[in-house]
Amino acid sequence: MKVGVIGSGDVGRRLGHGFASQGHEVKLGTRDPKKKEVQAWLKETPGKVSAGSFSEAAAHGEVVLLCTLGSAVESAIGLAGEKNFAGKVLIDVTNPLDLSKGMPPGLFVGTTDSLGERVQRRLPQAKVVKCFNIVANSTMIDPRLKEGLPTMIIAGNDAGAKKKVAEILAGFGWETPVDIGNIDGARWLEALTALWVRVAMSVGSWTPGFRVLRQ
Amino acid sequence: MKVGVIGSGDVGRRLGHGFASQGHEVKLGTRDPKKKEVQAWLKETPGKVSAGSFSEAAAHGEVVLLCTLGSAVESAIGLAGEKNFAGKVLIDVTNPLDLSKGMPPGLFVGTTDSLGERVQRRLPQAKVVKCFNIVANSTMIDPRLKEGLPTMIIAGNDAGAKKKVAEILAGFGWETPVDIGNIDGARWLEALTALWVRVAMSVGSWTPGFRVLRQ
Repeated sequence: MKVGVIGSGDVGRRLGHGFASQGHEVKLGTRDPKKKEVQAWLKETPGKVSAGSFSEAAAHGEVVLLCTLGSAVESAIGLAGEKNFAGKVLIDVTNPLDLSKGMPPGLFVGTTDSLGERVQRRLPQAKVVKCFNIVANSTMIDPRLKEGLPTMIIAGNDAGAKKKVAEILAGFGWETPVDIGNIDGARWLEALTALWVRVAMSVGSWTPGFRVLRQ
Repeated sequence: MKVGVIGSGDVGRRLGHGFASQGHEVKLGTRDPKKKEVQAWLKETPGKVSAGSFSEAAAHGEVVLLCTLGSAVESAIGLAGEKNFAGKVLIDVTNPLDLSKGMPPGLFVGTTDSLGERVQRRLPQAKVVKCFNIVANSTMIDPRLKEGLPTMIIAGNDAGAKKKVAEILAGFGWETPVDIGNIDGARWLEALTALWVRVAMSVGSWTPGFRVLRQ
């Protein structure tokens, strides 16, 4: 499968590496293909990988991952080109973290909206699935922690896209995700990240996770 | 210890029963002491228990629990009397659920405020601790589920009050809670409840829980 990654920060590189390790053809989208983290990623990532602009990465992907800073989402989509998302699964990993007042962060999108919804509205033809945003990038692939396996929780409007994401998650070592419904569920997944940061600060670990105990 | 419970719904009766079972002297505050649920609670709850007005319950408690509907918090505090909370541990179990658009609920207090903070501002002399609001009332006491033990997460400005709440939690079968800091953390604990409802709807259980995996 061809995978396009929008954003070459820690999250994008980590997920890109994970998809490449599963045999997928990954193009890492970046504002600066020459920067050293991207060049290092190209060397250390197995399989058929490449780097390019946001637009090239979005065009490349059958599945596209949105991995920018929350504050960069709008500009990144503009650079990537709306048409390059049409009809595709778009995995939105972003969080609207507001760090203007230091740590821990607030959210710049509130409880009546979310970045997931904004992305879906901006790209009505894309099949947006909120996923991966609730864990540290270091536990997105091979998520098992010493204390157990966290639960991925996803949201999105398209059942087929969520099925695809569940298959991807299974390949990465996750259990079947908890599907909380349409993309408006993203507002609570984004809020969970704000809680996650506080929990991380409290327990003194930057890889905590939440496990859903179903009953 | 004398415990006052503000609110005689499912949550207040459940927690009141729990405290009474631990040997505490519980007064259940209600708008209608004669209603059948309150009368049944008085009969079936062990130990030295009583019912009274919100004001009587608040005055009675050395520790006070706020267990009303989120929408009733302001009026309940007014009825209970601000002075009756001064210097006391106040455990805030409320959620600002907005059900005006049906299920799943939104929140009527957003990510820059919370009911926990509103309560603390309204009662500056009280030592508000957000606690218990993230689980079903049926798992507040003896919280162990088939799939494991959920984690309680608390927030509040007063270290002593949180220590007291941690002792209470231990008596009820909880592990040491995760303390996410000052009462503004309540905004994320309240948002977690919105997520909890969606998770419950997804997994088909009204007693799911979140376990924090620390590492």
